[in-house]
Amino acid sequence: VKNTITDNLTIAIDAMGGDHAPIACLDGLFASHKLYPSVKFIIFGNQDLIMPILNNHNEWQKYIDFVHTSDYIASDEQISTSLRSGKNSSMRLAIDAVKNKTAHACVSSGNTGALMAMAKIVLKTINNIDRPAIATSLPTCKGKIIMLDLGANSECNANNLLQFALMGSAFAQITCNKEDPSIGILNIGSEDIKGNDTVKMAAKLVKESTNLNFKGFIEGNDITLGTVDVVVTDGFTGNVALKTIEGTAKLCVEFMKRGFKSNIFSKLGYLLAQKSLKAAFKMTDHRYYNGAMFLGIDGIVVKSHGSSDAIGFQNAIEAAINLADNNINEQIVKNLQNIIENDI
Amino acid sequence: VKNTITDNLTIAIDAMGGDHAPIACLDGLFASHKLYPSVKFIIFGNQDLIMPILNNHNEWQKYIDFVHTSDYIASDEQISTSLRSGKNSSMRLAIDAVKNKTAHACVSSGNTGALMAMAKIVLKTINNIDRPAIATSLPTCKGKIIMLDLGANSECNANNLLQFALMGSAFAQITCNKEDPSIGILNIGSEDIKGNDTVKMAAKLVKESTNLNFKGFIEGNDITLGTVDVVVTDGFTGNVALKTIEGTAKLCVEFMKRGFKSNIFSKLGYLLAQKSLKAAFKMTDHRYYNGAMFLGIDGIVVKSHGSSDAIGFQNAIEAAINLADNNINEQIVKNLQNIIENDI
Repeated sequence: VKNTITDNLTIAIDAMGGDHAPIACLDGLFASHKLYPSVKFIIFGNQDLIMPILNNHNEWQKYIDFVHTSDYIASDEQISTSLRSGKNSSMRLAIDAVKNKTAHACVSSGNTGALMAMAKIVLKTINNIDRPAIATSLPTCKGKIIMLDLGANSECNANNLLQFALMGSAFAQITCNKEDPSIGILNIGSEDIKGNDTVKMAAKLVKESTNLNFKGFIEGNDITLGTVDVVVTDGFTGNVALKTIEGTAKLCVEFMKRGFKSNIFSKLGYLLAQKSLKAAFKMTDHRYYNGAMFLGIDGIVVKSHGSSDAIGFQNAIEAAINLADNNINEQIVKNLQNIIENDI
Repeated sequence: VKNTITDNLTIAIDAMGGDHAPIACLDGLFASHKLYPSVKFIIFGNQDLIMPILNNHNEWQKYIDFVHTSDYIASDEQISTSLRSGKNSSMRLAIDAVKNKTAHACVSSGNTGALMAMAKIVLKTINNIDRPAIATSLPTCKGKIIMLDLGANSECNANNLLQFALMGSAFAQITCNKEDPSIGILNIGSEDIKGNDTVKMAAKLVKESTNLNFKGFIEGNDITLGTVDVVVTDGFTGNVALKTIEGTAKLCVEFMKRGFKSNIFSKLGYLLAQKSLKAAFKMTDHRYYNGAMFLGIDGIVVKSHGSSDAIGFQNAIEAAINLADNNINEQIVKNLQNIIENDI
């Protein structure tokens, strides 16, 4: 059982998002409840699907408020449609709960585009943040790091990257438990002359106008080497890099399988090493890194992977609890203050 | 022993480039000679370092012309310096040999920026190609694929990407032995509405104005899944993706090591499976994918990795032999012809 700093934390849950809704969402919630018994939840979703599950759990009413809605956002729904006709959807109501301050954060495995668009409209962005970014933590040789933006902004200017650095630093302080996280800007060479004008200008801005622990440019291989705590990049490059990591990990597992299957000795070797290998690779299991935050939104919105199972959703809920408990957005405002005062 | 289609192929070698020059270059050459005895070589480099090695090999004069020069391009040299004062460098002379048609291709492990700049100045670009791109082959779950650009152009427009698709297709025909290679443009979603204007416009151009086997957009995880034969992207994204693959493969090997080391059973398992695993992972050994080509240069220039050992350099030489033997640039001109005629 873990204690939160804040009493009476409440997390809003969109129980209808993702491939395995609502069962993965609810099972994730119950697992989180065991670890964080003081946290309360508000669930939004369809009573016909959800009530039978809730009623399997004793005294769920003690820590869950359930709000019925039959509307939900489909995973392939156009963003414009979601915004226009999704006002009673489970996703929208979960975001509204953060706006109304009935919840400290919300979690959804639903349609990323719709979630971001609704979050922006309902909660707005933090003062002096031009564009929100999607940030998540990743496994590396040296432990957890943060990367952003992972796809909210397919084109970014230097000022956007500067703001990502400030927000990413706050996120890493809380998520990776680092006092002064090191920051790197992703580029195609570590020398100052490498790359495009945007990253060069961003590096200048971060270096000259912030107190961040800035390490300069890093390259693609530095991400998983854990060279820095926070990898700052535009949403196009970040999304490609994130998915390239996923794909390469799959390739390595595939080669490992082929190796183990190739003869009787390797098969026996697999039987002997199996348990230890699984434990070692657990670190790469994306479910344990689930829970991407929309940094820069004036309210905590955590996006769980669309394919999340109960373990994945549990981790997204716990990311939300941790971010709410440590007041991520206050920390971001504090980091921004520094630069804004410097600017004047 | 392998036969080439063309008789009298000659490959120019910059023997002074890379971390292990000249020994890795020469040992790679001798290994290639065993496989391709009909191919001739011209070596450029310092006689004091090279002659003692050559003289260890019987009858090297039968297939090697040696040209002495004491100048070479340092790995950290500024491109402008290389261009200005590198006219007698081993790198420049190897490129000149392609220009003079004394060699059909050249190979260097030296400074990438200097090599590209010299190649552009001496050999020029192929007609109707605006910018050369760096292309290489990569291991995937389904075999070898091609990716370009890997860093020559940190900003690209849609027309550049169209040209990369046409050149990449020719490169894959020869390097991956595919008749009609499938092409994908790297993006942050596979739907048509995803991504920035450049990739959207490029997809439209490739679809509407070429006969290429175009599969539309692919995502980062598709690279190593082998979803398409040719991954087309700008040099910034491509360089980040390539290095992210390298870094992630290292991370997986690291996790594997930790798993195997964790107890007596897993250690024993390692002993049993070791050989098969090494064979399976040989596919990811970058030395076997060594030899990036500067596509779009009017002459074949193959860049070997700066850290290449003899095996790596041998593979780069063999890539050059294959590309020269199959007239890669004629194939590119043919592919371009298609689109240019369509354009009129």
